[in-house]
Amino acid sequence: MDLKAYLQKHRDLVNRTLAMYLPAVRGPAFRVVEAMHYSLMAGGKRLRPILCLAAAEAVGGDVSEALAVACALEMIHTYSLIHDDLPAMDDDDLRRGKPTNHVVFGEGMAILAGDGLLTEAFRVMSDGALQPGQNRMAALRAIREIAAGAGSAGMVGGQVADLESEKKRPTRTLVEYIHTRKTGALIRASVRAGAWVGGAKEAQFVRLDRYGTAIGLAFQVADDILDVEGDAEKTGKRAGRDAELQKVTYPAAVGLDNAKRKAKELLDESLAALAPFNSAADPLRQIATFIVERAVQP
Amino acid sequence: MDLKAYLQKHRDLVNRTLAMYLPAVRGPAFRVVEAMHYSLMAGGKRLRPILCLAAAEAVGGDVSEALAVACALEMIHTYSLIHDDLPAMDDDDLRRGKPTNHVVFGEGMAILAGDGLLTEAFRVMSDGALQPGQNRMAALRAIREIAAGAGSAGMVGGQVADLESEKKRPTRTLVEYIHTRKTGALIRASVRAGAWVGGAKEAQFVRLDRYGTAIGLAFQVADDILDVEGDAEKTGKRAGRDAELQKVTYPAAVGLDNAKRKAKELLDESLAALAPFNSAADPLRQIATFIVERAVQP
Repeated sequence: MDLKAYLQKHRDLVNRTLAMYLPAVRGPAFRVVEAMHYSLMAGGKRLRPILCLAAAEAVGGDVSEALAVACALEMIHTYSLIHDDLPAMDDDDLRRGKPTNHVVFGEGMAILAGDGLLTEAFRVMSDGALQPGQNRMAALRAIREIAAGAGSAGMVGGQVADLESEKKRPTRTLVEYIHTRKTGALIRASVRAGAWVGGAKEAQFVRLDRYGTAIGLAFQVADDILDVEGDAEKTGKRAGRDAELQKVTYPAAVGLDNAKRKAKELLDESLAALAPFNSAADPLRQIATFIVERAVQP
Repeated sequence: MDLKAYLQKHRDLVNRTLAMYLPAVRGPAFRVVEAMHYSLMAGGKRLRPILCLAAAEAVGGDVSEALAVACALEMIHTYSLIHDDLPAMDDDDLRRGKPTNHVVFGEGMAILAGDGLLTEAFRVMSDGALQPGQNRMAALRAIREIAAGAGSAGMVGGQVADLESEKKRPTRTLVEYIHTRKTGALIRASVRAGAWVGGAKEAQFVRLDRYGTAIGLAFQVADDILDVEGDAEKTGKRAGRDAELQKVTYPAAVGLDNAKRKAKELLDESLAALAPFNSAADPLRQIATFIVERAVQP
């Protein structure tokens, strides 16, 4: 299969659908939808929705059953970026090469745009689940996965730990605590939720969960490596920003070589988890490889 | 029926359950759960959860079927208060007589505590819906109601309009736009969601919706009146705060006497909507009367 074409096709589908899912708001509140749209359509990779769609396909499901959940994942990811960039958090003024939400719309509006995206994500998923022919049990399981992955035991908790840990000594325990929550939990939830709505059997679900856990952490380890070694043109952010913010990163905790070794191990783990699957899981396999090999030469 | 005893009993039930619903988080992220707990347990009236439970009871449902949804409503209400109080919004340092969340925990943590509460609300609802014996269709409808009421076409939109309207001329159109969204939408959603999980028939749902719409607006009009005339001891906030922030209020738009007349009209409307219901709707009737008569003498 051609990964580039696969990513392009699924990204286009997500982008077309996402724009439709934003509510039509008239009157004085219109500006918040503008702010939500600004960050949602700023040209992300759509990794989480694509993983969700690919997990559904890996178990023989159809992308149409997973599309609402996939788009909701991107809304949640975007809200987290808007709030992370706020002055009270990382205080970033550039994201994907564009001024961040609060720089353009003001701080109050950026907080509300994030709140709006997080809330609409659950509206989109519940509304999708109520359409004729949907498996409501699977949809409720997906909603629960995503809420758990995004909440205080997951992504929000990871952001808190990150915020509390700046200037702390980076240990392997601390960095794994942060990474598995801040980035890992929502990536893992993307795969798990896609598995549910795609109709995964118990044994398939367990293996996809192992895959999602491994690549959730691998993604952040690769990101840390790119922050040290990466090319700002390709990554869309300034290199060395983590060091500047005194972030707890994998290379800071264990050194660059060990970080690279860890990323490769996680890739192997994710591929091993998929061993019993047929070629329907090839997109998941190639995405995992791509995630790690953009930072670590094979 | 004895309203005071009814409110006390249902408030106790909600308070006991709410504390249980917060996730157990260990390690560096623990502090966010502390921050969530601080605001959630600051002693609110629990109006939204009680309305949800009372709506379920009005159609012959059981409180146990509505409890998860009721608690989720209070989590969402609490998140909205935490974010509203932030320096980038209303910049309030007191709420219910206690220092606001960001004063105690810092601004970044307060944003994340709000994000956490909003997210956990959907986890609690979806998890509740997946328990044995629950009506999953009704639960999904309740989730959709609440997400729509809390989102950018509802509560978030109202807060945006409020933020954008400070120092604007208060017209009746503008104040109704803000009030029906900022406070009205979630109160209305509380009644609608309670109706669904209680098993409302179509005709009952339509009437409960009329009730919820009327008291949603009545609540905020009464609140505006209390801000002008109220006793800080009883209301728990300084009188005149709205004027100080140059908020668009009902009395500012139409005068105090017209605001009082409007509150009474809305009470009449809410009671008329309940006319065909038997005594199971008495709590809803008495709550509506209480909401209006704390601000306007009968």
